[in-house]
Amino acid sequence: MSVWPEFERLRVVLVATRNPLNIGAAARAMSNFGFLRLRVVNPYEPAFREARSAVGASALLASAEKYDTVAEAVADCTLVVGTTAVRNRELQHPLRPLEYGSRLIRKRLGSSRVALLFGSERVGLSNEDLSHCHWLMHIPTREEHISMNLGQAVAVCLYELTRGSKTARQPEKREPATAAEVERITELLIDALRASGYPGPAASTAEKVRRLLRRLNLSAQDARVWLGILRQINWKLRRDERDQPEGEGTQKRGR
Amino acid sequence: MSVWPEFERLRVVLVATRNPLNIGAAARAMSNFGFLRLRVVNPYEPAFREARSAVGASALLASAEKYDTVAEAVADCTLVVGTTAVRNRELQHPLRPLEYGSRLIRKRLGSSRVALLFGSERVGLSNEDLSHCHWLMHIPTREEHISMNLGQAVAVCLYELTRGSKTARQPEKREPATAAEVERITELLIDALRASGYPGPAASTAEKVRRLLRRLNLSAQDARVWLGILRQINWKLRRDERDQPEGEGTQKRGR
Repeated sequence: MSVWPEFERLRVVLVATRNPLNIGAAARAMSNFGFLRLRVVNPYEPAFREARSAVGASALLASAEKYDTVAEAVADCTLVVGTTAVRNRELQHPLRPLEYGSRLIRKRLGSSRVALLFGSERVGLSNEDLSHCHWLMHIPTREEHISMNLGQAVAVCLYELTRGSKTARQPEKREPATAAEVERITELLIDALRASGYPGPAASTAEKVRRLLRRLNLSAQDARVWLGILRQINWKLRRDERDQPEGEGTQKRGR
Repeated sequence: MSVWPEFERLRVVLVATRNPLNIGAAARAMSNFGFLRLRVVNPYEPAFREARSAVGASALLASAEKYDTVAEAVADCTLVVGTTAVRNRELQHPLRPLEYGSRLIRKRLGSSRVALLFGSERVGLSNEDLSHCHWLMHIPTREEHISMNLGQAVAVCLYELTRGSKTARQPEKREPATAAEVERITELLIDALRASGYPGPAASTAEKVRRLLRRLNLSAQDARVWLGILRQINWKLRRDERDQPEGEGTQKRGR
């Protein structure tokens, strides 16, 4: 994945975050998903200092912008979205699930800056914070446990923002084995079964094995490995047959 | 969001996790998204004890199951998926992006258990761990920073699993083999190869065979046929070994 130019327009805004580990985790997820502009509002000061000076703290964290108020932190954005775990409790705003909200955010990022706000670990965004938001977004979670860890919530939101930005991708194509290759494997396995005394009339066993091998949908590469395996087993079975004492040439089935 | 009955079939498996905070974070994301069955393999023991006894540790964490090996932790699952940040580096498995991989996992959860593996913070899943997987899944991240925090990776994967769960799903028609059945077949094939003098160091052959067999996606029914086939071949190979004249016990490879 490469960074989309539009992503440059997102501002992740952490409001009143207490725990430096969470600031670091948010920054890491931003870097993973290609959002490089972090703003912090009124952080617990020692936490912010600690996060910034941590070993391995990213350039992203070092260049984070610090603000005293939400108003200042979102001033240059045309859309301000607050995240919340709350569902219905006296929300004065439209509340949108992450997937739908992300579509709206991406659309806006096409032309101007968007601020995505995350509140403090304990209480989330305050009513004052929320009053700066155009609407709110929530991550669909289990009713019994709606409150997410801050760093994880940031990661999930940013993942969803990037997810929808890509066109559908095709799964990897593997080169399938040819029918001739599969048939060669079939013959070798039938030989091995015959040499091992596998029970059943020869004809029905052959059909059974043929169907069995077709169901595997082998790739060309795996077909070659199976050919090698079966050649080796057959070589050994035939060699043992030759080496056997007289009168024991036809084995009966063991069990 | 309510918990889907299918989600009860997912096993989140943390392999060799070092940091108790990460075990706790994984458990929290699981609880948020409604996946309640955690398994840990060979965790750093003090970390696991600490995570379990932490204030507010969930019932989920208290009921986490501990295993010594990946094989045991996934034995009752029919699909084993490893997560990785690696892209192209000599991966022996199909590598699927999260969105597509999640669709496949949801489909399988409709009928049987699925294990989703997360490796240690430092090195991820080992080659031995990976050899138990049917395929691998990665979260699309920025090329310059592909490695995610463990707790965040778990959150994003589980979010994606729930996100797509609203679309209609067709249950799979055939009953898939369990990991334990496939592992038994693996052992028998390795025995046969050893008895046949198949070349290569024992350990790398074992991993190769393990991966080869996972790629077959065997049904429960076909697994039984393969067990019968390999038992018969092994019986014959062993019997021939016994019957051989002195001094020819160790065969060299033929071609």
